Amino acid sequence: MSEPGEGARGVGRVEAFSDGVVAIIITIMVLELHPPVAPEFGRLWTLWPIFLAYVLSYAYVAIYWVNHHRLFGHATCVTNALVWSNMALLFTLSLVPFSTSYLGEHHFSREATWLYLVTMLLPAFAYVWLQTVIRRTGSQSHDARAYHQQTTRKGVFATFLYASGMALTFVSPWLGIACAALVALFWFLPTSPVDRLFGGD
Amino acid sequence: MSEPGEGARGVGRVEAFSDGVVAIIITIMVLELHPPVAPEFGRLWTLWPIFLAYVLSYAYVAIYWVNHHRLFGHATCVTNALVWSNMALLFTLSLVPFSTSYLGEHHFSREATWLYLVTMLLPAFAYVWLQTVIRRTGSQSHDARAYHQQTTRKGVFATFLYASGMALTFVSPWLGIACAALVALFWFLPTSPVDRLFGGD
Amino acid sequence: MSEPGEGARGVGRVEAFSDGVVAIIITIMVLELHPPVAPEFGRLWTLWPIFLAYVLSYAYVAIYWVNHHRLFGHATCVTNALVWSNMALLFTLSLVPFSTSYLGEHHFSREATWLYLVTMLLPAFAYVWLQTVIRRTGSQSHDARAYHQQTTRKGVFATFLYASGMALTFVSPWLGIACAALVALFWFLPTSPVDRLFGGD
Amino acid sequence: MSEPGEGARGVGRVEAFSDGVVAIIITIMVLELHPPVAPEFGRLWTLWPIFLAYVLSYAYVAIYWVNHHRLFGHATCVTNALVWSNMALLFTLSLVPFSTSYLGEHHFSREATWLYLVTMLLPAFAYVWLQTVIRRTGSQSHDARAYHQQTTRKGVFATFLYASGMALTFVSPWLGIACAALVALFWFLPTSPVDRLFGGD
Repeated sequence: MSEPGEGARGVGRVEAFSDGVVAIIITIMVLELHPPVAPEFGRLWTLWPIFLAYVLSYAYVAIYWVNHHRLFGHATCVTNALVWSNMALLFTLSLVPFSTSYLGEHHFSREATWLYLVTMLLPAFAYVWLQTVIRRTGSQSHDARAYHQQTTRKGVFATFLYASGMALTFVSPWLGIACAALVALFWFLPTSPVDRLFGGD
Repeated sequence: MSEPGEGARGVGRVEAFSDGVVAIIITIMVLELHPPVAPEFGRLWTLWPIFLAYVLSYAYVAIYWVNHHRLFGHATCVTNALVWSNMALLFTLSLVPFSTSYLGEHHFSREATWLYLVTMLLPAFAYVWLQTVIRRTGSQSHDARAYHQQTTRKGVFATFLYASGMALTFVSPWLGIACAALVALFWFLPTSPVDRLFGGD
Repeated sequence: MSEPGEGARGVGRVEAFSDGVVAIIITIMVLELHPPVAPEFGRLWTLWPIFLAYVLSYAYVAIYWVNHHRLFGHATCVTNALVWSNMALLFTLSLVPFSTSYLGEHHFSREATWLYLVTMLLPAFAYVWLQTVIRRTGSQSHDARAYHQQTTRKGVFATFLYASGMALTFVSPWLGIACAALVALFWFLPTSPVDRLFGGD
Repeated sequence: MSEPGEGARGVGRVEAFSDGVVAIIITIMVLELHPPVAPEFGRLWTLWPIFLAYVLSYAYVAIYWVNHHRLFGHATCVTNALVWSNMALLFTLSLVPFSTSYLGEHHFSREATWLYLVTMLLPAFAYVWLQTVIRRTGSQSHDARAYHQQTTRKGVFATFLYASGMALTFVSPWLGIACAALVALFWFLPTSPVDRLFGGD
């Protein structure tokens, strides 16, 4: 299904569109931070759940952008499957502002935390689809293969942590949030402990 | 009316601007998904019409982006007609968030569904104008001609389906929505049944 | 004040940023179109002033984007003056959504129309500054000079029409709106009657 | 930690994403300018604190964009540190619309001014981190070194002014605002008086 004559320029335009969507998603979340009506400084602290939810989601969407950026470095052509798996990823990410605002407004209640973790799990599935597409049609170099192996391991681990978080939310919402924060931490670390744990390089 | 000295770079900037506008259109629709005030989980289900309208419109705008991306692959120069037909397409697409929110808030009522189908029909007309412009001034290769023939056939079929949907809405709004969903389905399919029906390759 | 080593790439990034800002300005205006609470179809017609204001402003911002696009085709380097005159233009354009919503919500009242024409005049001044900068530092070809002469003539004419509109608003707001619409019309026409009037080619 | 195979194209994509985020930040601030409900013209003047806060923040974010644009001209490769220090900068900038709206709605009260200055100080720290990363991994030419020295001097001076402003806010909020405006003024001036003061070229 690859379009003839579409190479780096086509990939670049898909990237540019994705960048636009992610930039909007990451920025509109701050609109939830309404200044309190009362002028006293103490009232600002009542915003902490909304602020914390914003920080978490910002880190989360930022990690997706960074991974997306690296993954697209291995894409070489635009296929139907690439475009639609990418659109699916952007769709699942577009739900993050909603569940973030739900989480912040309901002060990390059990229900809100559970929904938040679901919203974190959905892009993980879409990302696996996108990665499978790029692995099949993109660059087949040694670097590309090593990259795909490493990130797949991280992805499986993240999915496992989100699923655990969803279960642990019924014990305490903060255990669920801790799982989400742990996933973020793993992505930040340059050489992931997961790799060493599973014998990766 | 073509501007001297504008080639791929000019086309690229029109594309980039269009990507920005479409990225915003597709993302601001999610702002309609306000979290319910009550913390109970059951209240989330009351959001289903707004969510369904969002999914439909996301798919719809995404299809336009994909088609726009392919169509611009055949554009070779920036003319007055290209810029303004493109602006007309973006204008009609910018009405989608409005009719989506109307559809979701009025629970797929007859009036809202009818208006939604009108909003789907308008970009189809603007797209025909844009395609006519690109066909006339753009690449004249065999691939380009085959591409234009195939998409014109799809476009006529989609227009016919939207018009039918507008009539069927007076029987039941869900028949109208079904027509819109059917159009989306046709664009998703790689080799459209429409092509085979009409003897296309 | 020109930065060493910045050529087409620097100009491209200023363009890309401007495109992003203009894309957001042109799109957030549609957020003013709130669906009416009552489900009856007839209630939709009460939105006409907001819709008309949106159409006018969309055309207005679109014309600025098109002119900006053509003008930057003659820019060759990024200077302090270029960046800041461009930022001034984007600032004045960013006031358009405000005055559009003022115009729509107050049903084209005298005050709202007057403010709207002021908002249309401000970007015209910023544009003259930007054009002066690009004329001085950009391409000096025959085409570039002819282009600058032609658009300067159009700009002077537009400024004159806006100023007249501001005065005529005190007779009737619709005369002011007519002046704004007339300016838009002039920019749409490929070979402007203004050119012929003043002996331009 | 540098990714193999990422050069100018990788840097370009980080720039494009940053441009998108900054374009949204600078534009959504205007959404705070709600038209007054009453149609009288006099009511418009009640918007002056919100408008003044918007002008200040627009200038502030615009200065960051211009500096970011120049700084990235010296970046040559995308590293983990580059991506995350850039994300940190964008995060701190994304808080500007919040503190701007707080400043405008509470009419430059002491608390709001103090918070606003904090929000101005945070991106300064993130910028220092980003600049340190680019200085270490980017271009090492004579121009690049001179550039980094000059902007570091300006950055130290700006940080000092913001900190002074935070203290002076307890005397009068307007002294705090004056400090912020002074910083903006210094960045606008092509050859900064700070350079001459400290013997820079």
